[in-house]
Amino acid sequence: MTEQLDELADLIRDEKLRDLRIAMDELNDGDIVDFLERLGVKDRAVTFRLLPKDTAVEVFDMLDQSLQHEIIEGLKDGDVAHFFESLDPDDRVRLMDEMPASVARKMLRHLDPRERSLTNIVLGYPSGTIGREMSPEFVAVPEHWSVGQAMEKVRRAGVDAETIYTLPVVDRQRLLKGVVSLRDLITTDDDVIVESLMSEADSVDADHDAEDAARRCADRKHLAMPVTDKEHRVVGIFTVDDALDIIERAESEDAARHGGAEPLNRPYLSTPVLQIMRSRIVWLLVLAVGAALTVSVLDAFEDQLEAVTALALFVPLLIGTGGNTGNQAATTITRALALGDVASRDVFKVLWREVRVGITLGSTLGALGFLIAGLAYDWEIGTVIGLTLVAICTLAASAGGLMPLLGKALGADPAVFANPFIATFVDATGLIVYFLIAMSVLGI
Amino acid sequence: MTEQLDELADLIRDEKLRDLRIAMDELNDGDIVDFLERLGVKDRAVTFRLLPKDTAVEVFDMLDQSLQHEIIEGLKDGDVAHFFESLDPDDRVRLMDEMPASVARKMLRHLDPRERSLTNIVLGYPSGTIGREMSPEFVAVPEHWSVGQAMEKVRRAGVDAETIYTLPVVDRQRLLKGVVSLRDLITTDDDVIVESLMSEADSVDADHDAEDAARRCADRKHLAMPVTDKEHRVVGIFTVDDALDIIERAESEDAARHGGAEPLNRPYLSTPVLQIMRSRIVWLLVLAVGAALTVSVLDAFEDQLEAVTALALFVPLLIGTGGNTGNQAATTITRALALGDVASRDVFKVLWREVRVGITLGSTLGALGFLIAGLAYDWEIGTVIGLTLVAICTLAASAGGLMPLLGKALGADPAVFANPFIATFVDATGLIVYFLIAMSVLGI
Repeated sequence: MTEQLDELADLIRDEKLRDLRIAMDELNDGDIVDFLERLGVKDRAVTFRLLPKDTAVEVFDMLDQSLQHEIIEGLKDGDVAHFFESLDPDDRVRLMDEMPASVARKMLRHLDPRERSLTNIVLGYPSGTIGREMSPEFVAVPEHWSVGQAMEKVRRAGVDAETIYTLPVVDRQRLLKGVVSLRDLITTDDDVIVESLMSEADSVDADHDAEDAARRCADRKHLAMPVTDKEHRVVGIFTVDDALDIIERAESEDAARHGGAEPLNRPYLSTPVLQIMRSRIVWLLVLAVGAALTVSVLDAFEDQLEAVTALALFVPLLIGTGGNTGNQAATTITRALALGDVASRDVFKVLWREVRVGITLGSTLGALGFLIAGLAYDWEIGTVIGLTLVAICTLAASAGGLMPLLGKALGADPAVFANPFIATFVDATGLIVYFLIAMSVLGI
Repeated sequence: MTEQLDELADLIRDEKLRDLRIAMDELNDGDIVDFLERLGVKDRAVTFRLLPKDTAVEVFDMLDQSLQHEIIEGLKDGDVAHFFESLDPDDRVRLMDEMPASVARKMLRHLDPRERSLTNIVLGYPSGTIGREMSPEFVAVPEHWSVGQAMEKVRRAGVDAETIYTLPVVDRQRLLKGVVSLRDLITTDDDVIVESLMSEADSVDADHDAEDAARRCADRKHLAMPVTDKEHRVVGIFTVDDALDIIERAESEDAARHGGAEPLNRPYLSTPVLQIMRSRIVWLLVLAVGAALTVSVLDAFEDQLEAVTALALFVPLLIGTGGNTGNQAATTITRALALGDVASRDVFKVLWREVRVGITLGSTLGALGFLIAGLAYDWEIGTVIGLTLVAICTLAASAGGLMPLLGKALGADPAVFANPFIATFVDATGLIVYFLIAMSVLGI
């Protein structure tokens, strides 16, 4: 496959665009996306313009947002307006969010009235809500209709709707009563009433947090979920492929912040080195300020360090182990929060569990540390190392478990408060504990 | 919602099982799953037995594997066999993988011949492949059929099939020629030939890695992908909801290993403390052995430490910054690997990028370090700190970028080789660099 794509790239270099167009006819949409992601900005724009309109819309939908934005910038004004019109309303809104406001408004003005009003429905919800990510093009079926009537409506509306596989069932006031799957409609006789086929709807409020709704959609294996307004009227539908996009973006953000960096939001190899550097430097500086605390702590205990230089030897081992224990707890809790296994109100349950885990881990490591440091140096040093490991592990596991919950309660991304922060926090407090224990055991 | 679930839990405590059964009729399947996940093992088994058979199968499908296993253990033998029969073949195989082999074989013997042969198709592929996760119950349509004929087949086979929304199109030898969506069939006249409607199939080989196939399915927004054998005959279908399960399991595993622990594979609050401790202790011990290296390194430079005690003050700051820089690079590359943005063969591209990012980050931090340490202590110390930061950041970013690729090339989970390992590696090598620089600048 990779070789085939390299051959296509050769066609661009040789400016054999007609051959390229013919060669791309053989590829499925996913392969075209892979191909486009390997090209530079200019080649990508040229290649994209060769695609038949239907393929272009499908392919565009699968591209990363940053690449979508670049492609739009590479199109001529007339082409942009035309292309913009052929997108789904929700994809259109996502794209508008990335554009300068003046360009977005101009685009909107060029749309035909129906498309414009659909787009405005989605634009009416704040970003970050599921209303902003849903599609207003759904097919709702009244509960008193027969299967035959419902199928007739699906056949007529089926081309434009976002999905026809999950259909909201409504009453005469357009209030959501349930959902019916196309599979059930198809495998049932035409004269059966829809109400008898429908199942309980798992719907979501349009103001609901988008990531949370996406995770619910994925966890519960829905192909689509109806979105309702405050009166429980259906205003849109939200499909699993949009849920996947939202989850992927959220996971990338979490992964990046766990590692102490901002997300790149575009494929690594197509990101300029300076942009990668910028995604990391702020975090490094913030963490370095925290780390400067450790210098002050050690400075305060300089007399003890001069008296027993051996104490300095164990500093990296002790704070490293503390950092690792804190990381483990923070990662577990951040993940549990993301999956909805733990909520902010579980804070005491989490604390009590992590204290016990920390003490168990600390005792195991502490016993080993006591033996090894005792044999290698002397039993007083061994005692200091052993006791410090118990204390640091308990402290680190508790702090690691609490920080993500604290972050969540403060309304911040739990991952921001997680691993690198904990390591820095544990470094400084761990050193204080270490020297206090050393002072009382060694009498210095 | 939470309050409502608490009221239901009260009904179990008061043994009002009839009331509970009636109350659960009002809930959708997702809410029942949430309810079951909050219960203890025994209550969960009791509650599960109250569900109507159809609901039980749906709900079972949404539960975590560990909870599925416990529920099966809580059922009576006759019930198990009955329930086992009503599962889809792919879910049945996943459950069998968790059971003792003797129980699994007994279960299989009780199935009716058709179900048994379907189950055996899936069992024929090694675990970890997409063949093991696919469903053999698909509806294929011959390319020369009319839409009317195809719809007739869908209507007949629609109840049993895993999905009817994406249909593989085959030739007379059952070779895969393309796919057609139910939406296209429904919105097209009955006498059109299927071949003219079908689009290029994005299929996957049954021996292909399951996680990779799942990510492709999700990335390309397919509701389902046909699975083929070596001759390109369709052997099964793989749906997006199964893809989501596989991705979630993989992400949880990656997240845990990033934090230096093994995945729990079950909801946090329902995991015993000792099991949480076990998921962490092995990693901590391995990392502590690595950290013991730092003790030896410092021991080797003890004379220099005694000569200039101030050197000890900066140890946590320097290795902490190195660890953070390494983490950032490792996280970025691990994520890029998971998303397919980077492959093993890109190793030199990645190295060259990370070296440049590392030098840029190191120079920025180094300049600051030089100034601050110079002002607070003296300019010689400032020089040592500044130079060490440049060296450590470059080293850490390169090592952080390479480790996940190395892990992947060795066939290991990239996340295993990632963050905690890098921190330990950077700690030891960073200290050597620090003391070598200090020795040459300070002349000690």
